[in-house]
Amino acid sequence: MTSDTRLRGIFTPNLVPLTGSGDINEPELRRYTDWLIERGVHGLYPNGSTGEFTRFTPAERRRIVAIMADQAAGRVPILAGAAEANVKETIAACEYYASLGVRAVAIVSPFYYKLSPPAVYAYFREIADHSPIDITLYNIPMFASPIDVPTVVRLAEECPRVVGIKDSSGDISHMIRMIRAVRPQRPDFSFLTGWEAAMMPMLLVGCDGGTHATSGVVPEVTRKLFDLTTSGQLDEARALQYELIELFDAMIYSADFPEGFRAAVRLRGFDTGAGRQPLSTGQQVEIDVLSDRLQCILAAAGFTDEPVGGCAACADSPAAAEVDKIVSGVVSELKRRGLA
Amino acid sequence: MTSDTRLRGIFTPNLVPLTGSGDINEPELRRYTDWLIERGVHGLYPNGSTGEFTRFTPAERRRIVAIMADQAAGRVPILAGAAEANVKETIAACEYYASLGVRAVAIVSPFYYKLSPPAVYAYFREIADHSPIDITLYNIPMFASPIDVPTVVRLAEECPRVVGIKDSSGDISHMIRMIRAVRPQRPDFSFLTGWEAAMMPMLLVGCDGGTHATSGVVPEVTRKLFDLTTSGQLDEARALQYELIELFDAMIYSADFPEGFRAAVRLRGFDTGAGRQPLSTGQQVEIDVLSDRLQCILAAAGFTDEPVGGCAACADSPAAAEVDKIVSGVVSELKRRGLA
Amino acid sequence: MTSDTRLRGIFTPNLVPLTGSGDINEPELRRYTDWLIERGVHGLYPNGSTGEFTRFTPAERRRIVAIMADQAAGRVPILAGAAEANVKETIAACEYYASLGVRAVAIVSPFYYKLSPPAVYAYFREIADHSPIDITLYNIPMFASPIDVPTVVRLAEECPRVVGIKDSSGDISHMIRMIRAVRPQRPDFSFLTGWEAAMMPMLLVGCDGGTHATSGVVPEVTRKLFDLTTSGQLDEARALQYELIELFDAMIYSADFPEGFRAAVRLRGFDTGAGRQPLSTGQQVEIDVLSDRLQCILAAAGFTDEPVGGCAACADSPAAAEVDKIVSGVVSELKRRGLA
Amino acid sequence: MTSDTRLRGIFTPNLVPLTGSGDINEPELRRYTDWLIERGVHGLYPNGSTGEFTRFTPAERRRIVAIMADQAAGRVPILAGAAEANVKETIAACEYYASLGVRAVAIVSPFYYKLSPPAVYAYFREIADHSPIDITLYNIPMFASPIDVPTVVRLAEECPRVVGIKDSSGDISHMIRMIRAVRPQRPDFSFLTGWEAAMMPMLLVGCDGGTHATSGVVPEVTRKLFDLTTSGQLDEARALQYELIELFDAMIYSADFPEGFRAAVRLRGFDTGAGRQPLSTGQQVEIDVLSDRLQCILAAAGFTDEPVGGCAACADSPAAAEVDKIVSGVVSELKRRGLA
Repeated sequence: MTSDTRLRGIFTPNLVPLTGSGDINEPELRRYTDWLIERGVHGLYPNGSTGEFTRFTPAERRRIVAIMADQAAGRVPILAGAAEANVKETIAACEYYASLGVRAVAIVSPFYYKLSPPAVYAYFREIADHSPIDITLYNIPMFASPIDVPTVVRLAEECPRVVGIKDSSGDISHMIRMIRAVRPQRPDFSFLTGWEAAMMPMLLVGCDGGTHATSGVVPEVTRKLFDLTTSGQLDEARALQYELIELFDAMIYSADFPEGFRAAVRLRGFDTGAGRQPLSTGQQVEIDVLSDRLQCILAAAGFTDEPVGGCAACADSPAAAEVDKIVSGVVSELKRRGLA
Repeated sequence: MTSDTRLRGIFTPNLVPLTGSGDINEPELRRYTDWLIERGVHGLYPNGSTGEFTRFTPAERRRIVAIMADQAAGRVPILAGAAEANVKETIAACEYYASLGVRAVAIVSPFYYKLSPPAVYAYFREIADHSPIDITLYNIPMFASPIDVPTVVRLAEECPRVVGIKDSSGDISHMIRMIRAVRPQRPDFSFLTGWEAAMMPMLLVGCDGGTHATSGVVPEVTRKLFDLTTSGQLDEARALQYELIELFDAMIYSADFPEGFRAAVRLRGFDTGAGRQPLSTGQQVEIDVLSDRLQCILAAAGFTDEPVGGCAACADSPAAAEVDKIVSGVVSELKRRGLA
Repeated sequence: MTSDTRLRGIFTPNLVPLTGSGDINEPELRRYTDWLIERGVHGLYPNGSTGEFTRFTPAERRRIVAIMADQAAGRVPILAGAAEANVKETIAACEYYASLGVRAVAIVSPFYYKLSPPAVYAYFREIADHSPIDITLYNIPMFASPIDVPTVVRLAEECPRVVGIKDSSGDISHMIRMIRAVRPQRPDFSFLTGWEAAMMPMLLVGCDGGTHATSGVVPEVTRKLFDLTTSGQLDEARALQYELIELFDAMIYSADFPEGFRAAVRLRGFDTGAGRQPLSTGQQVEIDVLSDRLQCILAAAGFTDEPVGGCAACADSPAAAEVDKIVSGVVSELKRRGLA
Repeated sequence: MTSDTRLRGIFTPNLVPLTGSGDINEPELRRYTDWLIERGVHGLYPNGSTGEFTRFTPAERRRIVAIMADQAAGRVPILAGAAEANVKETIAACEYYASLGVRAVAIVSPFYYKLSPPAVYAYFREIADHSPIDITLYNIPMFASPIDVPTVVRLAEECPRVVGIKDSSGDISHMIRMIRAVRPQRPDFSFLTGWEAAMMPMLLVGCDGGTHATSGVVPEVTRKLFDLTTSGQLDEARALQYELIELFDAMIYSADFPEGFRAAVRLRGFDTGAGRQPLSTGQQVEIDVLSDRLQCILAAAGFTDEPVGGCAACADSPAAAEVDKIVSGVVSELKRRGLA
């Protein structure tokens, strides 16, 4: 294989719309899948952290991928989250996803228990030795056992089935160390970042793309940032990166993950339903405030002809006044630049 | 209810013996259950962290509790780990465990995602409102979202179904804060520590007992430490606590959890089988070294007439020489005192 | 030496009163020194963390100890914080403190840089080899390079001048590990805890005493807790420990350390002056609120015939209303028990 | 002021050569100063973390800056570390450094105590209100109280004397957030990174330069990386960044900071002397091994006609064999590319 075969671009780790009774809302999931593809995402990534894979049953996880693979119908590649309770169950999931024709699976490092590097290695090695489908490692040290550089190197050397890594640490030095250590031996190995707050510089140091939750909210913007950066239009890319970080920070730091993203996807016109993790009354109020703020950010960015609507709310309520103060200068600047 | 009804004593978070093919070894699990009860544990705690609950399927988790409840046949109370993928699945598990007649369920705080205190509250509140069986909260901040003191207070005040907390942080100031804040209003609320390195002082500041993985290895010792401490024989208790910490540290810090405990249970005569988390070659060697060391510690503590055997291995191998140096003084001291 | 020579009891890490111009307020420091001794502290510990040693110049640090040694005049032993910029300067300070007749020096582990265990060892070893006075190690991992158990063991074995350790981690398992590893070889080695939230259990597992900032505020209470615990009156000790933790938590978590302690010492009638670390307006307001709350806690604990005064403030202001809510049940319970 | 006045380029946080008796080696410090300037560093930064400012006395810190200012004689600007024990002492140091004609001072956030954002703000505000010289904030969260984005914004808005920040966190998203929040209002405010493992991408997202310890070892390389990046030669810059990270990692992770850098500066021909922090025997051996490895890296990078010498050592000793294995492919690749 050569570098031409690398997984490349932005894969959306999508949320799963739920019905009022908390079940998978299949029609809305299909509509959302189409919408993402039409707006330019390079691939789809069901059963990621944004997709709340741990909150679904094994059967539901399979159904989510099956629905999306059917709906995508080959228009874009699919990276399916395949981590299950243990190696045996995970390999069975890999077999199922292979039968659906997805491009590869993504397997998060073991979580709950914090495993040592040798244990992390042994886990992935065992899966890679038996998987019928390509695997990307998934490193997300804030949630799961970290995958260190020597472990990535060893797995890349020994396992042809391991074709890439998604790293959500946001640590650009760590990304440089991984690419430097692996790429010479494995030019086909793909490096994807999961931290859109650093998307532009990650691409510039050698990343192939990213799996960005934000691309499920503003796929037009993340695609544009990818295109600007990879085509060398750095000034424009930098300005867009600076804007994207405001939206990202609002969604990720103002509510328990991924509630901020759920609120934002709703603003783009999707009936996301409530999540499976119950919310306290205080959390619900916070999400309403966040939603108003996100609406202003999105409206300022030009997303006005969709359910998003305008930003009128800002002027009317006390909460909105506070919100207005927070995003003040930003909003006007965004309007001036006319993002999109 | 009064303080007389509190969950009290040592509940063993048991490992699950597996067959060569990785399935639940039911006969050995039944034999192990009997052995633990006969050696004095106050209760059993299947599906805990030591029991690797995350590595079993939902159906297997139910089967483990069913086997043990059947085998215990009411001799000791059972605290069943009941956390599933989401609130709905967890409540269904609570209903099932209630039907088996277990004393209560233990529910770990949400993990993978690191939730805020309001989210942790909402999660437990939702479950408590619908559970047909008593619930103990399970706080293990190194693995799951922390349950802070205000959250414990609020749940204790609002939820009669929540009857206790197991805290594995090992932070004795945190334990004091919880007891101080909850006990006046809820004298029936039980506080269990999951950190046997501090078992004696935890009992002395007001804990009702503990869920100690070590009690699955040396139930005689943990029971004796409990009895000595609660009967005010502090000098003897302190000496035993000092000895217990050596065994605990060896099991918990020398291998990926809970492999050290698996090795030790094997030494007590049970066919634990291999765990479901694959081990690298290096890890297997380390566990063999650890096993030799544990054998010496256990032999020195008087457990010689069981499969444990003696400590002859120590003198023979280079690895053993190093081991010998490490446990040197300790072993001789233990022998002198004649622990039992 | 035998265990009879061990440093034992509560050593107060005292704040240093400052004048309006920010200089050392010598008369008030002398008055405070007398007051502490008269109220029963076993020893004094100038230049500790509570004493803000880093915010004084080398000359000022010497002067603080000189004043206190002169004022104490041998009534209680003094443990003098002696850490300076480097080994040479620290040894010079040790020589000076030895000339003043203090009992020992306390030397914090190197800070700013986070050093490895071998570097921590080398640092203390070099000082111990040249010090004319006994040394206690000072482990405070939240502020300085941690001193791990093997390092303590090695220093205890090799350095007769090292006669104890003060540990402010609050980790009781760590304390047990240290005592277990060192005491058999060095019965004269003293273990002092710096975390009064766990004072009673620390004493019960073998500590010899503590260096508690709270003893600079309520020396009567910390002395009583020490006496109750060491004389085996555990029920009374436990109740007092539960009360002490409220005061400690209020002082340590409601303001930047050690501002909460400064506010409380002021309530006991000392003109502490302002600290050298500037405070923002918001911080000053918070300290006023905290001061009201501390006044209520202290009044409820029976300290009414001193500058502390009563708790009338509570009923009058909005801030007090909030404070009142916070300490509500606690205060009434404390009154009922009549702490003294 | 405009963006033209911003501090820009690479400022070297230099080590201070010591004599055999541990005093400042003035002739060698002067020679090192010249060497750095001749090899292209844009500025000098005495009394930084690499310069071990905490291990010198206040008088020594002043002397170091005086020597270097005299030797530099205006050829390059000097950024002088000016943090002292408290605000009053720090302001006095600022006045002294101003009298020496240095360009600005750098003041690290308060350390030892971990201060809250309002306290960090109050500290810098007080200094900025009284300093006769421009100030750069110094954020190094692994060693000192973190300076968060709102605090930087507030200080930038309120204090004309605060003209920049050096950030050593290595967190590129944090850097983007700071620049985004401050630059519109303060185009003259400079952002310098202290983490050369991410130098290239930091410059590409808007940083003005860096204070890199590595520039004290290979000033030619860091200058070249700066020039390549700022002139848009990204492919060459990326390749050089990948090479630089090997050297940086070796120096920073293989020994207690800054011993790796001291070993490397010695290889470039300076008599650095021993540091003031004592080293254990084991540490000294490790530094010798590291030194062999650094010699190979430097030789491979083309620094052969200086004291560095060749890499013959690699093939001769067992330790070297291991070293050889570690740097294997890297060295050959570096040789092929002919760095510099």
